[in-house]
Amino acid sequence: MKNIIIASTSTVHGLGYLEYILEDLDLFFKGVKNIIFIPYARPGGITHDAYTDHAKQAFKKINIAVKGLHEFENPIEAITHAEAIFVGGGNTFVLTNQLYKNNLIAPLQHVVKNGTPYLGTSAGSNICGLTIKTTNDMPIVYPPSFNALGFVPFNINPHYLDPDPTSKHMGETRETRIKEFHHYNTPPVVGLREGSWLHVQGDSIVLKGNLDARIFEYDKAPYEIPTGTELNMLK
Amino acid sequence: MKNIIIASTSTVHGLGYLEYILEDLDLFFKGVKNIIFIPYARPGGITHDAYTDHAKQAFKKINIAVKGLHEFENPIEAITHAEAIFVGGGNTFVLTNQLYKNNLIAPLQHVVKNGTPYLGTSAGSNICGLTIKTTNDMPIVYPPSFNALGFVPFNINPHYLDPDPTSKHMGETRETRIKEFHHYNTPPVVGLREGSWLHVQGDSIVLKGNLDARIFEYDKAPYEIPTGTELNMLK
Repeated sequence: MKNIIIASTSTVHGLGYLEYILEDLDLFFKGVKNIIFIPYARPGGITHDAYTDHAKQAFKKINIAVKGLHEFENPIEAITHAEAIFVGGGNTFVLTNQLYKNNLIAPLQHVVKNGTPYLGTSAGSNICGLTIKTTNDMPIVYPPSFNALGFVPFNINPHYLDPDPTSKHMGETRETRIKEFHHYNTPPVVGLREGSWLHVQGDSIVLKGNLDARIFEYDKAPYEIPTGTELNMLK
Repeated sequence: MKNIIIASTSTVHGLGYLEYILEDLDLFFKGVKNIIFIPYARPGGITHDAYTDHAKQAFKKINIAVKGLHEFENPIEAITHAEAIFVGGGNTFVLTNQLYKNNLIAPLQHVVKNGTPYLGTSAGSNICGLTIKTTNDMPIVYPPSFNALGFVPFNINPHYLDPDPTSKHMGETRETRIKEFHHYNTPPVVGLREGSWLHVQGDSIVLKGNLDARIFEYDKAPYEIPTGTELNMLK
């Protein structure tokens, strides 16, 4: 049975890394002693070691040990035997490219479908959707495909940002971008504001955190859903 | 001899489409009676016809007729015989994908190298760089390559936006994104603020408009250049 947290962000303004969600992670990872961290998204281009240290510090507070996937000789085998998996944020293109390069897409799909707990934040959440076509990231590397892990039957837009009515900048708003996505693609998109997450348990998908989320369905006006809403039927 | 305008945006806040740059376009297109407009980037998903009408209205003011590339039976032939070319903004991935699909990359490179005047705005400027890896757009379609037209030996970041020191949003700033680009790529990036453009004439590349631009070179601190600066040596 799938057991997944798909979080908009690792960090909310004014709090430390994962701090806003740490109590929930303590429950989510109940019984877990060791997590494999996938540091491939390399936020700001930091090294896999430095990024893994960051994750280690946070999980120490709830007594879970973290080891970076790059520390294993055989990443496929490591994923296959992982007790739990955490994929951190950074650049979604870099992350996706590295997952393909290391042939990790199918192994991740296999273990997560069979119950290995998975936590994603930001880029690590983007890849839980059908494709990475609703990422906010800059396409700094060219991955072999935009197809992602497909843990949920829709796309994720993390760090969802409401339009700023005072802005004089002419670049597209997030909503405009997602509407453009629907000119070429039909899957729904869940806009997850910072501090929100989806909790997937088997066939159940529930919005968590304090905020509403914004749902974009093909050929429909976007709408808001309150926290606690079940998204099991969205596809 | 190359003759190109690479503009950050088509529209600055408070003015009409191309209005801020129309006097300069009048000079740039001196003697030109007909422009071929490439509407492939489809901002907001509008049709090629609707987008072309938009361009027509703007160029009517300087007595230039506009025809959409989609109106020609043979787009390669149309580009080969074009008097001048304008590529409008929208989604850079959609634009790039369509250019590849219609085998237009090499024909565009050929005619622009040989002097056909080219105007690009936003996405139409992004593709003037070496790659589209510094676009701000959402990757809503998967193009066969991120390689672009390479009219200049660096990358463009249009709609360049300075960090907002009051923001509580945890998404990456534009500067952070471009720095991440340089962890995987070495070409310089020119951050063009809205209202700025590059004028390329043969080997000369000059920053125009009222604003400074921000230059990002590999392994160097970013720096500002004033309008009027020659960028001929940047590569």
